[in-house]
Amino acid sequence: MMTDMPDTTSTEGLAAAADAWAAVLGPQNVLRESPAVAPYACTTLPAAPGPAGVIRPGTAGEVVEAVRIANRYGVPLYPISRGKNWGYGDACPPTAGQVIVDLGRMDRIVEVNEELAYAVIEPGVTQRQLSDHLREIGTRLWLDCTGAGPDASVVGNVVDRGFGHTPYGQRFHHVSGIEAVLGDGQVLRTGFGHYRAARTAHIAPYGPGPVLDGLLTQSNVAIVTRLGLWLMPQPESFCFVVCFLHDPDDVVPAVDALRGLRLDGTIRSVAHVANDLRAVSSGRVFPRTLAGDRAPLSADWRARLRREAGVGVWTITAGLYGRKAQVAAARRAIAKTFRRRGRELHFLTPQLLKAGDAAARLLRFTPLGPRLTEKMLRPRKVLDLHCGVPSGHFLAGAYWRHRDGLPPDFPEGCDPAQDNCGLLWLSPVVPMTGAAVRAFLALVEPIYAAHGFDFLITLSTVTDRALGAVMTVAYDRDDSDEAARAMDCYQALWAAVMDGGYIPYRVGIQSMADLGRGSDGYWGTVAAVRRALDPGGIIAPGRYEPASGRPETMGEDG
Amino acid sequence: MMTDMPDTTSTEGLAAAADAWAAVLGPQNVLRESPAVAPYACTTLPAAPGPAGVIRPGTAGEVVEAVRIANRYGVPLYPISRGKNWGYGDACPPTAGQVIVDLGRMDRIVEVNEELAYAVIEPGVTQRQLSDHLREIGTRLWLDCTGAGPDASVVGNVVDRGFGHTPYGQRFHHVSGIEAVLGDGQVLRTGFGHYRAARTAHIAPYGPGPVLDGLLTQSNVAIVTRLGLWLMPQPESFCFVVCFLHDPDDVVPAVDALRGLRLDGTIRSVAHVANDLRAVSSGRVFPRTLAGDRAPLSADWRARLRREAGVGVWTITAGLYGRKAQVAAARRAIAKTFRRRGRELHFLTPQLLKAGDAAARLLRFTPLGPRLTEKMLRPRKVLDLHCGVPSGHFLAGAYWRHRDGLPPDFPEGCDPAQDNCGLLWLSPVVPMTGAAVRAFLALVEPIYAAHGFDFLITLSTVTDRALGAVMTVAYDRDDSDEAARAMDCYQALWAAVMDGGYIPYRVGIQSMADLGRGSDGYWGTVAAVRRALDPGGIIAPGRYEPASGRPETMGEDG
Repeated sequence: MMTDMPDTTSTEGLAAAADAWAAVLGPQNVLRESPAVAPYACTTLPAAPGPAGVIRPGTAGEVVEAVRIANRYGVPLYPISRGKNWGYGDACPPTAGQVIVDLGRMDRIVEVNEELAYAVIEPGVTQRQLSDHLREIGTRLWLDCTGAGPDASVVGNVVDRGFGHTPYGQRFHHVSGIEAVLGDGQVLRTGFGHYRAARTAHIAPYGPGPVLDGLLTQSNVAIVTRLGLWLMPQPESFCFVVCFLHDPDDVVPAVDALRGLRLDGTIRSVAHVANDLRAVSSGRVFPRTLAGDRAPLSADWRARLRREAGVGVWTITAGLYGRKAQVAAARRAIAKTFRRRGRELHFLTPQLLKAGDAAARLLRFTPLGPRLTEKMLRPRKVLDLHCGVPSGHFLAGAYWRHRDGLPPDFPEGCDPAQDNCGLLWLSPVVPMTGAAVRAFLALVEPIYAAHGFDFLITLSTVTDRALGAVMTVAYDRDDSDEAARAMDCYQALWAAVMDGGYIPYRVGIQSMADLGRGSDGYWGTVAAVRRALDPGGIIAPGRYEPASGRPETMGEDG
Repeated sequence: MMTDMPDTTSTEGLAAAADAWAAVLGPQNVLRESPAVAPYACTTLPAAPGPAGVIRPGTAGEVVEAVRIANRYGVPLYPISRGKNWGYGDACPPTAGQVIVDLGRMDRIVEVNEELAYAVIEPGVTQRQLSDHLREIGTRLWLDCTGAGPDASVVGNVVDRGFGHTPYGQRFHHVSGIEAVLGDGQVLRTGFGHYRAARTAHIAPYGPGPVLDGLLTQSNVAIVTRLGLWLMPQPESFCFVVCFLHDPDDVVPAVDALRGLRLDGTIRSVAHVANDLRAVSSGRVFPRTLAGDRAPLSADWRARLRREAGVGVWTITAGLYGRKAQVAAARRAIAKTFRRRGRELHFLTPQLLKAGDAAARLLRFTPLGPRLTEKMLRPRKVLDLHCGVPSGHFLAGAYWRHRDGLPPDFPEGCDPAQDNCGLLWLSPVVPMTGAAVRAFLALVEPIYAAHGFDFLITLSTVTDRALGAVMTVAYDRDDSDEAARAMDCYQALWAAVMDGGYIPYRVGIQSMADLGRGSDGYWGTVAAVRRALDPGGIIAPGRYEPASGRPETMGEDG
């Protein structure tokens, strides 16, 4: 059994496979040459392997055919939904020689069930598409949105186990019923979905027998072609909590307080804790003309940008959802727990924003009017994001070190990979205690400084007990020296978090080969499962697959 | 590769394995003869395969050794934690010839972390043991309890994906970090636990790479030796909601209301909807001497027992947990939604029960005193169960048709299998809509009547969108005709729910071979994974393994 795929697929095999795919999918859905293939090779990383070609199946049946052909000719396939995996590799495969399976044409919203509050969608469905559709057909169902922008795939994010902002933010826990094509060409339906008569495929995730859904996330055994996603019925009341901390050390007691509020059910959504530059960078880029070319920003500049953006050294945000009395009770609990000297606590509601809009309209011919309108934009986008409406605004951070700053029509159609942004993401998980966060920050922050980069971080309550950090290394992709330093910085951070025990919940293609670092046994089991379900090793070689193999087992491969 | 295990293991192989086990585990931990083996063969089913022997490893290392020996001699192993899988097969394997691995000696509570609210436990740890331990060491952490009684294993229930009553009732979602010995003798640690430096093994379940935890539940690839279980910090406030419905059809709007209260976060725990006889049977047995020997009870008798027990045609129960204001808000929302003509709604709090106790003490020399004390017992047990204290009281239902009624010292040390109770459980999942529940009841209730059994059912909110039914066929195990009819009734129910699309979330050994009924593909994938992780087919052959094999695949086993 092959464990290392060759870096390049044989030219003859590829040509023969391309002909076979063209016969099944139509020649227009088999791309082999630039310029058609070029956009798929764009990346936010300093470098990434390009594809050996692109195929675009339109149905699950075509995916089955495509996989069979790939097996026949030994051509590895790298499935993407929309390819917006920014900071983690974008559309690029972890190794060269793979043919991208672009699932963008499979963008059907198969079903929306308002009574039971779920949708069944294909991988090409974007956040914008689902969000718009839910409003257009008159439902009052909300999609949990991530900050990855309107054009990102919902399924793609689930398959990488991403998280959003609402009570449905741990998206993998809000999936019920996955359909996938395994590497051997078999179609798998998880949960109850494989029972032809089942009435419960999309309302209860676990049918009798082992749970296989987890095998289809962060893996390389199958191509997901459809899934059931739970949607949140619009709550009676919504309130957005923002707390600015003005003392850097105050994050320690604040994290302990946050844990208490998650554990007792006061906050049921994914709360985010952002440092100053991460909060600032969601609205503007590095002040290159004034502060000089070179990162990191001085303490004075950080203070100035904080003042301009009106944020704290740390900013904590969380959405409250529910009946009016529940939300009101949660507000009071948060006020009691969180209000302290050195903190600013705000509760933002849609009503309040409407009042702000009205004021801005009233004052529109005064100097204050346009500024107020401008000032209202970001809170409105934040609120929208928490209420089922995706926004591209939060991609601004990807442009932090871009020479040209934000595109003129930002955020319309913006795409950090196509726009040549430099962005490396690393997502270690940290215990949700003040002491752990302090130790973690002391570990990673100096690495940024030592490599000459701004420290951008959010910490999100991915469980009631743990924070998922997202650390950004933003760099100027036009500056090859800075790009090389960015990768050095990333690698130093990688070593520090792996050895320090703050293992990432998700990794980019830049680190997949190194996932074995410090691990016992698990990856060998993963390899054995893969050999069983994808015996040809066809699906995404190298995806969540460390270079080290499995230790000797007692039995032979079975 | 073997897919069907022989019904009996070769005598020579077994003898040689027994000697090898005795050398590793000590001869006292290898049981081959009656009377030592006999208790393991007791079952609540009409019949079940007995074990070929019993081994009792004391550590995970001994489990590894035991599995290696089993592979060497081709002896299949059937792991049990405490063997209290009543109604589903108890300690019995699904096929003959298997040696039981009794993990009862592995009963260490490895860690309790109060700050992050979790425990790490071995499979032998019982509900009582963990509950007592948490109080003894002075923590304010609550265990989610099931009604299976104090002597049931926590891990055993998790591994079968059972559910309890609290906000942590979907137990599988409150597990983080599993250690298991695979069928090939390898040790697997899931989540972050396989990283030697990891600080997050028990506070976030998903490390980088595919999620394997689900493979270790309702399966036969491994023996779970340890897991991290999240515990609920004692809430500021607790309230128990009971609603009696007096009109049978009222369950339809009540289920729709319940869905709304789950979806909007008012009820965050597992609510239970019990029919009259299920509620009655948790306090008493079939009134054999008065109503005659033969089930089912007449409508008049049902009405009489409802009056005596003070329950409705349907009883809905749910726990409310949280800060005082949260619980108060939830009470108001429930009152507003649920209070209607023909329903009785009660809110029970620990304070109210204390007042009742005080009143009983005050009146202890009057005729009312002892009756009040007696009357308080059941509510107190129900409250305890919802607040981390297991109780054997709810096992009374297992004795419903027992000739001798409840044991004199019930519930102390009671054990339905050892006590020769007749009990078959079937657990189909039903959409949480009134219309679906109506259709489901119309399908199954007549089957009970046709076979001459009382209809006992609960429906529990296992997700926000689905109800997990537990249907009891209670029968007199001393009456072979009634036992045969009970199995006929069960099989008719099985056929009805499988063909009707209300597939069970969990099944007993009596149905595992039939799990392929109406299914496409999934079980073949399960078989392929098993061959990869347990190439010798050593672990629990037949457990969640239908008789039908996998359809032809493209590749060979890999």
